[in-house]
Order: sequence, then C-alpha cells, then structure tokens
Amino acid sequence: MGVDYYSSYISRLIEQLSSLPGIGNKSAQRLAFHIMNMPGDQVEQLVQAIHDAKEHVQYCKCCYTLTDKELCPICGNPKRDHSTIMVVENTRDLAAYEKTGKFEGVYHVLHGAISPMLGIGPDDIKLKELMQRLQSEEVKEVIVATNSSLEGETTAMYISKLIKPTGIKVSRIASGVPVGGDLEYIDEVTLLRALEGRVEL
Amino acid sequence: MGVDYYSSYISRLIEQLSSLPGIGNKSAQRLAFHIMNMPGDQVEQLVQAIHDAKEHVQYCKCCYTLTDKELCPICGNPKRDHSTIMVVENTRDLAAYEKTGKFEGVYHVLHGAISPMLGIGPDDIKLKELMQRLQSEEVKEVIVATNSSLEGETTAMYISKLIKPTGIKVSRIASGVPVGGDLEYIDEVTLLRALEGRVEL
Repeated sequence: MGVDYYSSYISRLIEQLSSLPGIGNKSAQRLAFHIMNMPGDQVEQLVQAIHDAKEHVQYCKCCYTLTDKELCPICGNPKRDHSTIMVVENTRDLAAYEKTGKFEGVYHVLHGAISPMLGIGPDDIKLKELMQRLQSEEVKEVIVATNSSLEGETTAMYISKLIKPTGIKVSRIASGVPVGGDLEYIDEVTLLRALEGRVEL
Repeated sequence: MGVDYYSSYISRLIEQLSSLPGIGNKSAQRLAFHIMNMPGDQVEQLVQAIHDAKEHVQYCKCCYTLTDKELCPICGNPKRDHSTIMVVENTRDLAAYEKTGKFEGVYHVLHGAISPMLGIGPDDIKLKELMQRLQSEEVKEVIVATNSSLEGETTAMYISKLIKPTGIKVSRIASGVPVGGDLEYIDEVTLLRALEGRVEL
C-alpha cells in the first residue's frame, strides 16, 4: 500500500485498524479519518475503554467467561441451577443464550472449538477445565451448545466421548430448520437433520 | 442493550466501538472480544497508533490535507504545478486521485461539502481558505472534484460562482458512465449526464 501521500502516522493507524477482524482497508481508512476528526476527549474515552477492558477483564475462575470479578455474575448466582452446564464456544454464544432468558443453568466457555484444519486441538480450548469442574461439582447434565459447524460438531462428539464414561448425562442442542425459516432456502444438510430429528406430535 | 452478562468494562468498550462509523453492535461485539484476546503489546500498539496519529497529524497550512508536517509533501514539492488546484471534499478523495499518478497539480481539501439538509454551510468547510489561496498565489485553473452527489454538485456550483468573478478558470471533473460499467446497470441520471457530456470522435 503506497499511501505516502498520507502522513506516516495515519498510514500506521490504518494498518493497525485493518488488522482487526472484519475491517478491510477501505473501512480502516474511513475509521482512521473519523478518529482524526473526533474531539480529543472522545478519542481519550475510546482509548480508555480499550485499556480498562484489557486491564480489568479476566476469565471467570469457574466457567471461563470474560468478567471483571473472580466469579462471573452467573456462576455467583445461587438461584441458577449449578447442576446443569451448557458448554459454548465463546462469550458471545453465552450472551445469545442469556438473551433468551429461558436457561436456568450455568455455562462453560471453551474459547474455541477443535479444528484439525487450524491446528486447534483439545488442549487448546478449556476442555481440561470442564472435566475438572465435573469432578469437583455435583453435575447432572452437560448440554453441548457448540456451533453447528464442522468444528462445533467435532468438539461436541469429543466432549460426549469424554463425559459418557463418568455417567453424567450429555445432550446436544437440536439442529434443524430455524424458526421462521423458509424450507425453500435452507440447505440440504439442515433439511436432512430436521428430518432425522423429527419429534412425534 | 441489557448486556449485564458481560463485564461493564466490555459493555463500555462495545459502546465506544459501535459509535464509530460503519460499525454496528454485532461488529463492535466481535471487535471487543477480539481486542480482549489480543496480546497486551498488540493492544498497546493499536492504542499508540491512535494517540500518535491524533497528536502529530494536523492540517497542511496550504491545502488543508492531513499531514504531520507544516506543509504536506504535495504542497512542498516544487515539481508539482502549483498553478492548478484540484478541490476535493476530503483527504481520501485526494488519495484516490494521487493513486492515478496522472495529476501534476496541487490540491485543496474542503473537509466536507455544502449540505443545507445537514446544516453545513459554506463557512463550515475550507472555502474561505481556498479564496485566500487564490488571492495570494498565482493560480491558472481550479478543478472542482467534489463528489457527484447533491452536496458535491451544490458545492461545485457555489465554488464556480465564487471564483468566476476573479477571472480564474474553473472546471468540473466529467461525470458519466464509469469505465468498464455495464449500461444496463447504471442509473438514469448518470446515463443522462453521459449523453449530455458526449464528446465528438
């Protein structure tokens, strides 16, 4: 990128911004110029928010979600059902299920999924920590809510194989036609899954 | 946004990020979690780039582009034709024309366009500065390269009316069918412009 008609400071900022996920070179340019035109105190607020989040946020020592306390609000809530653990790939997926407001149990955040393609093995995600939790806590059911992707399914299978010998119930969230989805536009694999997973009415 | 299942530090970061242009709530979430997972020194580099750009970058005292020197590399280059000034809305547009490598003149960056809708008048953009420049420099031609939008055209008309009495030549970049553009997909106004602006072969 021969952007020598900008200041080298702007070029460096554009470079830094475009290394973020989902931000291409054009967006990075737009963002950089927007930041240049922002009032100084707003820029300070942005930088402070990055610093604060990076400094204060840590893993919950129980479920490994991101939190600023030792124990996250969900793990620290005695009203939640601590015998039911939902395993998710990341904190955003946890948030998605929390938004439904219908899950009373607790979570375990893996921070990834097994992917031989990307060289991510079982030791690279918080699986060991999940197994330790199952030993020390009174757990009745583990619900595997990893994504319905190749990696998510692989991880689900692996977890199920790990946990089955312990006698703890392992379940997988249903996959099928999304609510409101038009059959015409849904891929064949999903349609097949929906058929296989049919329930009696 | 009841995101109380995140840390309040993360919520604040998401809020800050989603106030940037082109970044919605979902992207801001993805970015925030990405920043959380970035190594500390990378975060530091990002923050430093923001700080440096904000601190060192200023307007060129001649053409008002963003630069880290008093005079930008283009205005400071004696080989450029300082008697031909191309007026653009912002530094990104300047960069777009510089990439063509075919414009030998210098620029004037307005930092906006006249928009009665948004309440942006002639005094809110660097027009006064352009007129001062025309008085103090030996200028032969002003090429108005504002966007082909309502605001850009309004600004072009305004500039032309301002400059005409001084006797300096004012021109407007051509508008028409983009090179490689398929007529079928081009809007009617552009097609009409292309017809009006036809040149003899």
